[in-house]
Amino acid sequence: MVKDSAIIISGGLDSTTLLHYHKERIGLAISFDYGSRHNERELECARWQCEILGIPHIIIPLEFMGKYFTSSLLKGGAKIPKGSDYSEDNMHSTVVPFRNGIMLSIACGLAESKCLKHVMMANHGGDHAIYPDCRPEFTAAMNEAMTKGTYAGVSLIDPFTFLTKGEIISIGKKLGVDYSHTYSCYCGGKNHCGNCGTCRERKQAFIDAGIPDPTIYE
Amino acid sequence: MVKDSAIIISGGLDSTTLLHYHKERIGLAISFDYGSRHNERELECARWQCEILGIPHIIIPLEFMGKYFTSSLLKGGAKIPKGSDYSEDNMHSTVVPFRNGIMLSIACGLAESKCLKHVMMANHGGDHAIYPDCRPEFTAAMNEAMTKGTYAGVSLIDPFTFLTKGEIISIGKKLGVDYSHTYSCYCGGKNHCGNCGTCRERKQAFIDAGIPDPTIYE
Repeated sequence: MVKDSAIIISGGLDSTTLLHYHKERIGLAISFDYGSRHNERELECARWQCEILGIPHIIIPLEFMGKYFTSSLLKGGAKIPKGSDYSEDNMHSTVVPFRNGIMLSIACGLAESKCLKHVMMANHGGDHAIYPDCRPEFTAAMNEAMTKGTYAGVSLIDPFTFLTKGEIISIGKKLGVDYSHTYSCYCGGKNHCGNCGTCRERKQAFIDAGIPDPTIYE
Repeated sequence: MVKDSAIIISGGLDSTTLLHYHKERIGLAISFDYGSRHNERELECARWQCEILGIPHIIIPLEFMGKYFTSSLLKGGAKIPKGSDYSEDNMHSTVVPFRNGIMLSIACGLAESKCLKHVMMANHGGDHAIYPDCRPEFTAAMNEAMTKGTYAGVSLIDPFTFLTKGEIISIGKKLGVDYSHTYSCYCGGKNHCGNCGTCRERKQAFIDAGIPDPTIYE
C-alpha cells in the first residue's frame, strides 16, 4: 500500500490504535511537546509504538504554549482536577485553547512538505462535550481549510470521530495493540494515578470493551 | 474602544497598515520567526511599529519549519528567484506549506487564552494566485474552524482580502504610516535588493498608489 498519510500521535489509547489501524499508509508520525505535565511519559509511549511498526517519528516542540497559553494541563498551570469523572465541569480547566487546530495545521504543512496527501487524527466521541476542537463541526471546517490552503489538497482522516473509547480499544485488541505502552494520566507520574479524569476514563474504556486492563495504577 | 483582537504582523507593508488601521482594537500583536532569510529584518520593523503604537508584541519561534519544511524562503532552501516579477511560476518555490494556517491557529489559541475575540490578518488580493492559504476560500474555512473550535468563537478579520497592495498603502498613507520601517525583500539583506519578486511588487505598489517610495534599494 502507498504511504500517503501523516498521523498525529500523542501516545494515548486512541492515537496509538489509529497508528496500528492504518500502519501501512502512514509515512510520518508526528508528536507535539507542548509543555504539558504528562507529555514526557506520553512521548516515550508514542516513540515505542512507532519503533515497533518501523514508522518514522518526529517530535515538534511548542514551547510557546507553556509560556503564553492558559490551561491546567500545562506546567505552571492550576492543579489537575482529581477524584471525579471526565465530565465537562471537572475537565474544563484542562482545555488547551485550539490545540487540535494548531497540531493539525502544523501536520498539514509537514504533510505537504513530504508529499503526503492526508493527516490522520484520533479525536473521538467522548471528547466532544469538553473540547470544542474535537467536534465534527470543527474537524469538517478544518478539513476544508487544509484542502483549500494547500496545493495538493491535503485532507483530514478522523475515523474515530463518532466512536467511544471502549469501541476504539475493541478495534485495537483485534489488531494486537499492546496498551501497556500507552499513557493517559494528566498528572504525569511514572505510573497512572488512577484517580484523575483521564485515568477514570481509561479504566472505564477497558471495562466497556471487556478487555483486561494492563495498566499499573498507583 | 475595547481591545478585542490579536493581529498577525510580519513587518511588511500589508500587516503594518492593518496594525495602524485597527490600532485601537488590538490587544496583542504576534510575529512568527519561522527561520526565513528575511525574518530578522522583518521582525525589527514589526517591533518598531508596535512600539510607536504602544501595542504589546510577542515573537513565536517556529524552528521546526526551517528543519522540516520545504521552501526557498527558508534558510538552507533553494535560491530565491531573482530578476523577475511576482508571478506564479517565479514565486512558487517561495511557498511555505500552510504557513497562514499555522500562524492563524497559533494566534487563535493565543487570542482565546487572552480573552480576545478576533484574529486579524492582512492577506490580500495580490497573493491569491501564488499562495493557496491567502485565498478567500481558505480564510472562510479557517474562520469557521476557529469559530467552531474555541469556546469564545474566535473569528478571523481579514479586511484586505480583495484589495491590491497599492490600495492598501493608499489607506496607510492616510493613516500616516511610516513605511520606511517596513521590510519586504525575500533576500533578507540590510537594504532591499530591489530585484526579487517581492521588491518589485513593493516598488509597483508605491507607483500604483502615487506615493513616494521611502525604501532604500541596493
